[in-house]
Formats: sequence, C-alpha cells, structure tokens
Amino acid sequence: MAPSVLLETISSNDGASTTSTRIAATATAPATVPPESRSQERRLMHRSLTESPYEVISASGSYLHLSTGALILDGCGGAAVAIIGHGNEEVMAATVAQMQKVSYVHTLSYTTSSAEDLANFILEVSPGGFQHGLEKAYFCGSGSEANDAALKLARQYFYEKGEPQRKFFVSRAQSYHGNSVASMSVSSNLPRKVPYQDILMRNVSFVSPAYAYQYQRSGETEQEYVARLIAELDAEFQRIGPENVISFIAEPVVGATSGCVAAPKGYFAGVRKLCDKYGILLHLDEIMCGMGRTGTYFAFEQENVLPDIVTIGKGLGGGYAPVAAVLMSSKIVDTLRAGSAAFNHGQTYQAHPVTCATALAVQKIVRRESLVQRCALMGMLLSKLLMDTFSGCKFVGDIRGRGLFWAIEFVRDKTTKETFSTSCHFGYNFQQNAFKLGLAVYPGAGTVDGVRGDHVIIAPPFTTSVVDLGKMVALLKEAYVQEETRLDLS
Amino acid sequence: MAPSVLLETISSNDGASTTSTRIAATATAPATVPPESRSQERRLMHRSLTESPYEVISASGSYLHLSTGALILDGCGGAAVAIIGHGNEEVMAATVAQMQKVSYVHTLSYTTSSAEDLANFILEVSPGGFQHGLEKAYFCGSGSEANDAALKLARQYFYEKGEPQRKFFVSRAQSYHGNSVASMSVSSNLPRKVPYQDILMRNVSFVSPAYAYQYQRSGETEQEYVARLIAELDAEFQRIGPENVISFIAEPVVGATSGCVAAPKGYFAGVRKLCDKYGILLHLDEIMCGMGRTGTYFAFEQENVLPDIVTIGKGLGGGYAPVAAVLMSSKIVDTLRAGSAAFNHGQTYQAHPVTCATALAVQKIVRRESLVQRCALMGMLLSKLLMDTFSGCKFVGDIRGRGLFWAIEFVRDKTTKETFSTSCHFGYNFQQNAFKLGLAVYPGAGTVDGVRGDHVIIAPPFTTSVVDLGKMVALLKEAYVQEETRLDLS
Repeated sequence: MAPSVLLETISSNDGASTTSTRIAATATAPATVPPESRSQERRLMHRSLTESPYEVISASGSYLHLSTGALILDGCGGAAVAIIGHGNEEVMAATVAQMQKVSYVHTLSYTTSSAEDLANFILEVSPGGFQHGLEKAYFCGSGSEANDAALKLARQYFYEKGEPQRKFFVSRAQSYHGNSVASMSVSSNLPRKVPYQDILMRNVSFVSPAYAYQYQRSGETEQEYVARLIAELDAEFQRIGPENVISFIAEPVVGATSGCVAAPKGYFAGVRKLCDKYGILLHLDEIMCGMGRTGTYFAFEQENVLPDIVTIGKGLGGGYAPVAAVLMSSKIVDTLRAGSAAFNHGQTYQAHPVTCATALAVQKIVRRESLVQRCALMGMLLSKLLMDTFSGCKFVGDIRGRGLFWAIEFVRDKTTKETFSTSCHFGYNFQQNAFKLGLAVYPGAGTVDGVRGDHVIIAPPFTTSVVDLGKMVALLKEAYVQEETRLDLS
Repeated sequence: MAPSVLLETISSNDGASTTSTRIAATATAPATVPPESRSQERRLMHRSLTESPYEVISASGSYLHLSTGALILDGCGGAAVAIIGHGNEEVMAATVAQMQKVSYVHTLSYTTSSAEDLANFILEVSPGGFQHGLEKAYFCGSGSEANDAALKLARQYFYEKGEPQRKFFVSRAQSYHGNSVASMSVSSNLPRKVPYQDILMRNVSFVSPAYAYQYQRSGETEQEYVARLIAELDAEFQRIGPENVISFIAEPVVGATSGCVAAPKGYFAGVRKLCDKYGILLHLDEIMCGMGRTGTYFAFEQENVLPDIVTIGKGLGGGYAPVAAVLMSSKIVDTLRAGSAAFNHGQTYQAHPVTCATALAVQKIVRRESLVQRCALMGMLLSKLLMDTFSGCKFVGDIRGRGLFWAIEFVRDKTTKETFSTSCHFGYNFQQNAFKLGLAVYPGAGTVDGVRGDHVIIAPPFTTSVVDLGKMVALLKEAYVQEETRLDLS
C-alpha cells in the first residue's frame, strides 16, 4: 500500500485534512550525501566520519525542512526533546527579552530572576496537587551534567551526614544516564561504553532491568517477578554492604536503551522500601521520560514513590536551549544546610540566565496550554493506533509506553522472542525506511542486552495534531511493511 | 584616599572623562540580604545555603546593574567569560535569527549551518597565519563537558590505535579542569574535591605546577627550573610506564586555582618533546585562558608547541550561551577515521544550533573588531598600571599574567613569601572591599598548594574602555589599601 493511500485511510477516519498527503507528496528520499573526503571535509565533528548528516534549514511545529527539499514529520522530537514542537515564537521572544536584560552572571556573587523563577515554577506543587517533596533545583547544561552532578550531590550528602564510607553506586543493566565519564559509568548502554571501559569508575555495579517482556519468566506472575527483582537488588546491596552504598539510580521509564520500558507494578515501591531500610538514596533519572512525556509531569507520579534526587533534561527546555537540572528533596537540602551549607559543586554556566528564561517560557506554555494533559490523552490515541496497526504484525514483539513515549520492539519470532541477527540492522533499516517516507523516528539496537534486539521509539511533540499523529502511525506501518517484505525476500 | 579622588587621579592621566566618578557615586554597598530561612527560601540551589547572591537586573558593556541600585564595573567578566562585555545587540539578533530557523536537531541524523559555520570559523587559520594543526571541533555545553569528552577522545584514540593498555592520565597540582567527576578527577583544586575524593577516578596522578614565583628555587635559573620540572614529569611517566599513559593535561596559563600563572620559558616545549618520545597525547586546557584572553587567539601560540587536543569554553560564547568545544588535531581524527570512523560520544545538545549561532556571532565580532589584538594592547596597559600601582605594596608578592588575564598574589611577607593565615581571608576580604566600591574581581584562596595563599584575578572584557581600565586599577588599589589598613590595625 502506498503511503498516500494509507494516509488517506487514516485521515478519513479523523476528519479528512487537505494536508493529509503533504508528507508523502514532498518527502522524496533525500539526495544521498557522499562520505566526506579530507579535501572537502567539514570542520564540525559529526557522530560519524563517514556519514554526513542532513542539513536542517528550518523547523516549525512538528516539521523539519531539509536543505534537500524534503519535509520531515518529527515523530520523535529529536530524542524526545521537542515537547512543544519547533519554531515557537513566544519562546524566542522570552529568550531575547532575557538577553536584553542580562545573558550571563557569575553565580558566586549574583543571581537572576529567570533562574529563580524557573526553579520556583517547576517545583511548585503540580496542578493536580501532587506532593513531590523536592525542594531545590540546580540548573546545568545537559542531562549528562545533571546526572554527574547528582552523583556528587549524593556522595556529599553522606559525607556531611558522617557516613563517608559510602562510595558505591548501584544502577541497572539496560539503562542510560549520560555520556560524561561518570554518568556513563552508571549506564549500561554497552555499545557506547566499549572503548572506555578501562577508564570508567569502578565503584558501580548493576542489577537486572525491570523489563517484563524479555525477562519475566513464563509462569511467573507480575508480583513474583517484582519480588525476584527486589530480592536481587537486596542481594546486591548485601554483597557491597548496604552501609557502603550511596544511591540506586534508575529511569522510571527506560528511554533509548531498551525503548520505553516501564517497570512492573510495585517495583519502584519495593525499591523505595529497600532503599529506606538501608538509608540508600533513590535517584530517579527523568531526563528522557520526565517533564510530562509519560502523561504526568514527573514519570514517578505513576509509581507511588518519592525519590530523593530527580534529574530532568530534554523536555525542560524542549530543545530551545541546552538546559537540565538536578532536583533535590528536603532531606538532602536539610543535611547540607546542617553541614557545610553548600553544594560543593559549581560551574560557570550553572543557572545560565538565558537558558533558564528559555526553559521558563517553554514550561509556561506547557502549563497554560495543559500540554501534559494533552500528552496523556494523545498518548491514549497513539497507544490505540499502534496496537490496532501493529499487533498482528509478525515481527512486532512488543508495543509499550506511556503518554507520548512509545516503542515497538521487533523480534524474528513472536513466540520464542528470538531477535534478529545484529547484521540484519532491523531497527536502523526501519528508521531509514521511515525517513525516506518523510518521518523521523528514533531507532535503537541492543534492546535486550546491549547486543541483541531492535526497537524504534515514537515520541512526538505534545503539540502534535491529531491528524499528524495518524500520519505518523501510517508511515510507521509503511516503513515496517517495507522491511518485512525485504526480509521475506532475503 | 577616597575612591573618587583616586578615580580622578587616574582619569586625569587618561584624558579626564565626565563619567570618571560614576562608580564611586553610585556603587554604595549593596543592602545586606539576610540568610534565607525555610519559609522564605528560594527554590534555586545557590552556591551557598546561607549567603544570598545579588540579583543582576541588567548588564551593558562592562557594567552590571543590581536590584539594590548598585552599578558594578565588571573587572573579571564573571570568570573571565564576558570577552565582548554584556548586552551586545548583534549577538542577540544572531541568536533569535537562528531560533527563527531551527533551535534543535538530533545530530544522529541532522546538522545545521550554525554549527558547521562555527567549526569552520574558529578553526580557520588565525589572521596571523598561525598553523595550529587542529582539524575538527566537537561542541558541547560547558568546559567541564569539554574536558570530560576530551578524556574519552584521548582514550578512544589509543583504543583504536591498538594500545588499549593506556589508561592513565597525568595532570598537574594547582590546576582546574572542571567539575564533572572526570574533569574534577584530573583537577587538583583541593577545596572543590574534598567531599568527593573517594568517588573520583583512580587512574590519575599529578606532577608539580610550573609556578616560578612559589616553586623556582633560590639560585635556580629558569632553564634549570624547567629541566627539573621536565625530569619530574619524565619520572612520573616512568613510574606509571609511559606506554600506559593516555595524556598529559595542562592549562597553558593556569586560571582560577593559582591565578594567571604562565609557565617558565621552554617548559611546554619540553613537555611536548617528552610526550612525543612516549607517544603520549598533549591535551591543553584553554577553557579559561583561550579565545584571545592572553593576547593571542590560542594561549599556546606563545609557547611554541602544537597540542593534540585543545579544550575551549568561556570566551567561545562570551557568556551569551553555554557553549564549549573539544578541538582535535589531524593525528586524532586520522586514527579514528582509519578505525571505527566515529567519536563514540554523543549528546542531545552537542552542536546545539542556537548556542553555536550565538558563539559564531561573538567570534565574528572579535575578529572584525580585532579584539584579540586589542586585548593584547590593553593587556600591556593593564600590566603597566598594575606594576606601577602595586609593586611597592607590602602585601603584594607577585603581579603576573598575559593579555587581559592578570592576577595579584598576596603574601604576608614579600621576602619569605609567607602567606596569610587561612582565617585571615585576605583574598575574600579584598574582593568584598572591591565589590563595595563597585568593582567585581575574581578572588582565589589556596593559591600556593590548595590551602595556603591568596590572589585576585582581573580579567575584564576585551572591549573595556581605556578609562574603565584605569578605574579598575584605581578601585583595586583602594580595596587593597582598606585591607592593608585593616590588617595593620588588627
């Protein structure tokens, strides 16, 4: 079925739009850019030295315009970043208004209203009245930086509390917490770690992911699976000596590494109870899944736990500015207050006035337009569309997610959950197919254990129109059919 | 002597200005802000939980306007960041122009002209024709991130080169390379490390700083001092096994930790020769001293060496945006190209389109207005003013620096170089005196060894007027006299 036909099918169920075939009409496959040679090469270090990325010349709403002429529907907001879409004029106005006041101050002596206001705004009790217990925000420039700073904060907490013997972190397999040496040390995204294993921190260990589709045993109930995971975590704490552990670090909904994996019911409550038993801090990494992405402001609101430290990132600035934060509970702040009275960590660009003003504008729009609620409702639609469209597909093993944060996990055999061979590059091919059809999605490999498995993430802006959401799923299906056909013929 | 009198003295030597007493007239001591209590506290995590920073409500040129009504002359550009001063309209226009095109793309698939153009612009051979040998730029959001990424890049270089046994870094005492766990691990700014020592990387060791004022022995020539330092470095490489060392990391001019300390002549040439002998990479950290601050575009241009990796930060965006970079030589790029063909390191906000556009605007202004040359010439004036004003002062041990990056090191006894007791807080008091007079400077303690010593850094914008430079030194003198008087009376 040609994409335009699929699009019409979807849009006719949705109140047909005159722009429903816009993507299929304009998104011809972008011209191939040849690998760069030394003489013509660009000075910017790209992710690859042999593949040239496409130049984006403009972006608006849920669409990216490439220099090749192609128009791309942004089905993943980059990496689940662009929560209010692209090109928002109000955010631009707020950014330049702050620059007209002051762009930079040294936080040793000065503060600015934009940083103060952003902290106050995001830590106000959420509209639903959820009591998160988080007291202060430290702003920095990336999720990696936020997690790196959070590891230091957790360590300082115990140093000041008189428990300096605590120097170990426990994290989970199939997790990602960043790309600085320390945030990568607590990550287990294996392909990203390979060259660096020998220089990473040694005081980190890993327990199993809470990943029911692949790891809940046949015949095991959800409750039994949770009990097994908690017992494993307890055993790991015991192995290290629980009095030596600083924190347990987890993504409430795992992001890029395994693809939108939420934990089984009761898992985080069990983790919290265990951490409390031993005085270990619970650090929840909401850099990818937070700021409304899962349909609640914090992803952990759906887990019935309160963390000690939360890190946020991508959705905070929605891509308009590089900004992230460490949020800390009163327990942490009180301990520092009674001790050195300082977080012994500072950076030139912490609480940067401009990035904070930009993020504040994004967050005000999210609140005023009820975009978290919209995300939750649109997520229900996305869920239904994905289930209806893909459940019967022979290579689709699992469809999972929350809010507008969904993944499809691909398997060669739905019964045995056998994965495709790594040389098959299913996820990558799928993403390339979608891209040629005019749809950006976020692919992943190594879904199961860092080596085996393929998935694709769909994480559109919260502002995506209902029609465009329909288009996304239609194009996803077409990309899938192309890959299924290719494999059936091979 | 009242500051207004001092100002008039200076300005009358300089072509008297009608605004010469502006600071003294307006910069009354800011109202004291009481320590925050829980009920009234702000949500933003400041550097201290007991001291509230002053709110900056606007900034223009070399001046900061506080909410208290005070007008502060920015004698340090924050932390040597604001190279073109504050409130530049051209930079704002470039920022919003980029936002009108595109604010964020995922670099796995896309690139933008702003990031490409910034890389090309900063790596063009400098106007003087200096051949730096640096081929590519990786952009990130802070100096800490840049150094963290540079450690990974250096490690990956050897991993791909077939020397995976190399896993040790050698750095210098009295250096600072950032606040992420890894960049702090290669730093030796002791007060910043205290709570974290037990979680830092273990594969790092330190050699002596190249810091003649405190460590060149009596009767030792500069050449002998350099030979001793190089011999120590050689011995450290031998201790580790030079075949196990990844890189040697150094600031060409040490920044905040010891205060604008340039190495003795021949030191970096000796370091380069030793690194070449063993195939060890030379990573020069120009985050604070680079981008023209010392009077040349790169600080290392004055050292007659070519590094393998250079990190830049503060001056790159001049404070208008949080942006930093890792610059890598062709040797590094060629090795990756022949291997995995990728730097196995990526971040959501690498090469952020907006921060790159902002930095590009700053750098274009610097080049068009010949601001590096201006920095060098103004630096000669600053040097002369500081020497003339402070050489005879009894607590001034050393006056040193390059370009517009100068420090005064204070000692209790100029002959013995005995430092003030740490409880004296000489540097802090000096900075407070200056602040009350309406001048911002950047103080430091632990100058000599992380514990003993005091200094203050003067690092104004390259655009600072001649008259304002005169004012700065006059106010510095007044701040000094206040502190000298206080100590003589105590």
